Amino acid sequence: MYAFSRAVNSMHSEDIKQLMKQASGKNLISFAGGMPNNDLFPVKQIDEIYNSLPEDLKKLCFQYGPTSGYPPLIKSLKSYLKEKGLPVDENKILITTGSIQAISIVTREFVNEGDIILTENPSFVGALSVFETAGAKIHSIPIDKDGIDIKALKSKIETLDRKPKFLYVTPNYHNPAGIMYTPERKKELLEVLSGTGIILLEDDAYSDLYFNEDEKHLTKPMKSFGVKEVEIIYTGSFSKILGPGFRLGFMLSSEEIFEKAETVKQAMDACTSNFMQILGNEFLAQHKLKPYLEYLRSEYSERKNLLQKHLQAYMPKEITWNEPKGGFYIWLKLPPHIKSTDIFKETVTKGVVFVTGRTFDPASKKDDRLRLSFSNMPKEQIEKGVIILSETIKRAIENSKITLS
Amino acid sequence: MYAFSRAVNSMHSEDIKQLMKQASGKNLISFAGGMPNNDLFPVKQIDEIYNSLPEDLKKLCFQYGPTSGYPPLIKSLKSYLKEKGLPVDENKILITTGSIQAISIVTREFVNEGDIILTENPSFVGALSVFETAGAKIHSIPIDKDGIDIKALKSKIETLDRKPKFLYVTPNYHNPAGIMYTPERKKELLEVLSGTGIILLEDDAYSDLYFNEDEKHLTKPMKSFGVKEVEIIYTGSFSKILGPGFRLGFMLSSEEIFEKAETVKQAMDACTSNFMQILGNEFLAQHKLKPYLEYLRSEYSERKNLLQKHLQAYMPKEITWNEPKGGFYIWLKLPPHIKSTDIFKETVTKGVVFVTGRTFDPASKKDDRLRLSFSNMPKEQIEKGVIILSETIKRAIENSKITLS
Repeated sequence: MYAFSRAVNSMHSEDIKQLMKQASGKNLISFAGGMPNNDLFPVKQIDEIYNSLPEDLKKLCFQYGPTSGYPPLIKSLKSYLKEKGLPVDENKILITTGSIQAISIVTREFVNEGDIILTENPSFVGALSVFETAGAKIHSIPIDKDGIDIKALKSKIETLDRKPKFLYVTPNYHNPAGIMYTPERKKELLEVLSGTGIILLEDDAYSDLYFNEDEKHLTKPMKSFGVKEVEIIYTGSFSKILGPGFRLGFMLSSEEIFEKAETVKQAMDACTSNFMQILGNEFLAQHKLKPYLEYLRSEYSERKNLLQKHLQAYMPKEITWNEPKGGFYIWLKLPPHIKSTDIFKETVTKGVVFVTGRTFDPASKKDDRLRLSFSNMPKEQIEKGVIILSETIKRAIENSKITLS
Repeated sequence: MYAFSRAVNSMHSEDIKQLMKQASGKNLISFAGGMPNNDLFPVKQIDEIYNSLPEDLKKLCFQYGPTSGYPPLIKSLKSYLKEKGLPVDENKILITTGSIQAISIVTREFVNEGDIILTENPSFVGALSVFETAGAKIHSIPIDKDGIDIKALKSKIETLDRKPKFLYVTPNYHNPAGIMYTPERKKELLEVLSGTGIILLEDDAYSDLYFNEDEKHLTKPMKSFGVKEVEIIYTGSFSKILGPGFRLGFMLSSEEIFEKAETVKQAMDACTSNFMQILGNEFLAQHKLKPYLEYLRSEYSERKNLLQKHLQAYMPKEITWNEPKGGFYIWLKLPPHIKSTDIFKETVTKGVVFVTGRTFDPASKKDDRLRLSFSNMPKEQIEKGVIILSETIKRAIENSKITLS
């Protein structure tokens, strides 16, 4: 039912659509949705902000705004991005209607039907849906626990007969893989792209959601590395730090890319809601973000710990995963002969859902993984969900042994 | 500075861009902006709605929603559109991020680069900007005081070597022309399109803003006429009945067109803000729209009357216009040898701005008109603005006589 079920649907066959329909019923234990938890939204803070807006500002909420964004929000974002080390003064910020619109704008700006886009495999399904709708040819590069496979990336670029328009990556607390690029891997990635003319589209929706203050430095965006030989477009979102319902995102790019992006955005929706931008800006400008993020980190970290604990307790030894250090996701690896989609078909009848591995493969094939999201999960349901899931997987492993023997 | 200045800019030369920059200063008397008046927004009503939302609904404001729209809003819109006689049960509603997004989606769905789109001349600049960004070839058909020129439309369709993808029209309280299609003209238009396979894109942002209850029946949409031989996509907006800052629009179309439109929207911004949809829905569901529209109509009607009165008092007899019966605009006609852009260059230095005629011509040429918007105008400024404008025009007429003689 939610935003990306459509993308999931469009990439899958009738059986999954049916299962999705079943899964939209009541009383489900859902590890599926990649959205924040309803009970964690800063409702009280936004109430306070809204009710103390001066009359003039409140009226402005109802009005059109500039296509590039509400100027005070752009100013607040500058400070926010500067703290991440990003070169805000030499670049321009465009406010977008969610970061998916930023990805859509960049695609519209650079990609014609049949053009090549490079992605990670697995990759964010929302972005894949944008690229597919644009008629792009997606070539995907595997990732490991430290980031994109550099050798595979290099060899892909060398063997392609045309230059890809851009490489799309989500290096921090990857969706769905839950991994974090190491600083070395980020550097190597930039080295491979240097001089190729391939743009890097660096999507960074989760970097504020680290679980351990010591690891904050690992979230440093590649756009802050000062590498002049790679054109980097950096995108971000308020969806994980305020709420997806605001539909607020942004992109930071060179002035040249910004100028055309502004025209493309103009033709998409004229401007992003002033109402949402004004509330979002006050949230930043009144310094409500930092304490709220501290609260969010501890809440999500607690959920991750619970899921990690129960997975360790109940999962058969054949199942492996990396414990995430931030973000929303655990990315379970199944034995090669077990398919995520088959597991799903079983668990959904028992009231447990997740997102199947092949959803995140641009070719909709690789199906030996499953994504568990702990973000939108009542804590007390985690154990029961894991028990049902692990029993189903155990049975599948048993059955496959019988079949194989 | 506002949303469509970009579109205006992109269609015009450096000199107009400069003038626009000058015009964004303070203390201007502006007949330019096609936006509602800040002082007329339903701020108090939205305050009440927001502060009485149940906790669960408030949390939902922050969350993702379905790509097609927030289901209770779709339900409320059904009632609203049913009252206009629209066939809501045989069609599907897609909520969009402003009606400009609906136009953008339809364009994306049907138009490839080089494809032909038919428009009125003059036409809404925001739509023209969408069509141009898509690389469409725009062929425009003149309109008169009763609607599109039927003979010209017919002959255009006959002489084109390819079938246009759609015809885009704004039949009710036209922007910029301020006119209203007669029921006969609407019928003739449908007859011409019947059997051609050309889709009709009927954009209806202003139909609730009639000045006289007796004329309400004239706003009847063509999609309500029951003509099966023409595929009609109907678009509408909350921008004029609630506020552009909400970025809420919608399209009503056949299920087939809806399905693809939903996928296109998914790739544009995933979903429209739940926050804005929930507030918008409560505004409709709590029956706050009708009394608010009554208030709006009387306010805009009063402004129109003032502008009409002062134009009659001060304009030289060579200047003609049709008194609008609703909407936001008066469309002045200059003598053929006087250019709207030249008048603008004069008045802007005296602190009065409007939008030049050629802005609304897809070919950016026809410049014998100027658009005066009375919607966003403090009432007490109207007379002074008209005096400055009419004196400038008088002088231009005098000068042209001297030059001609």
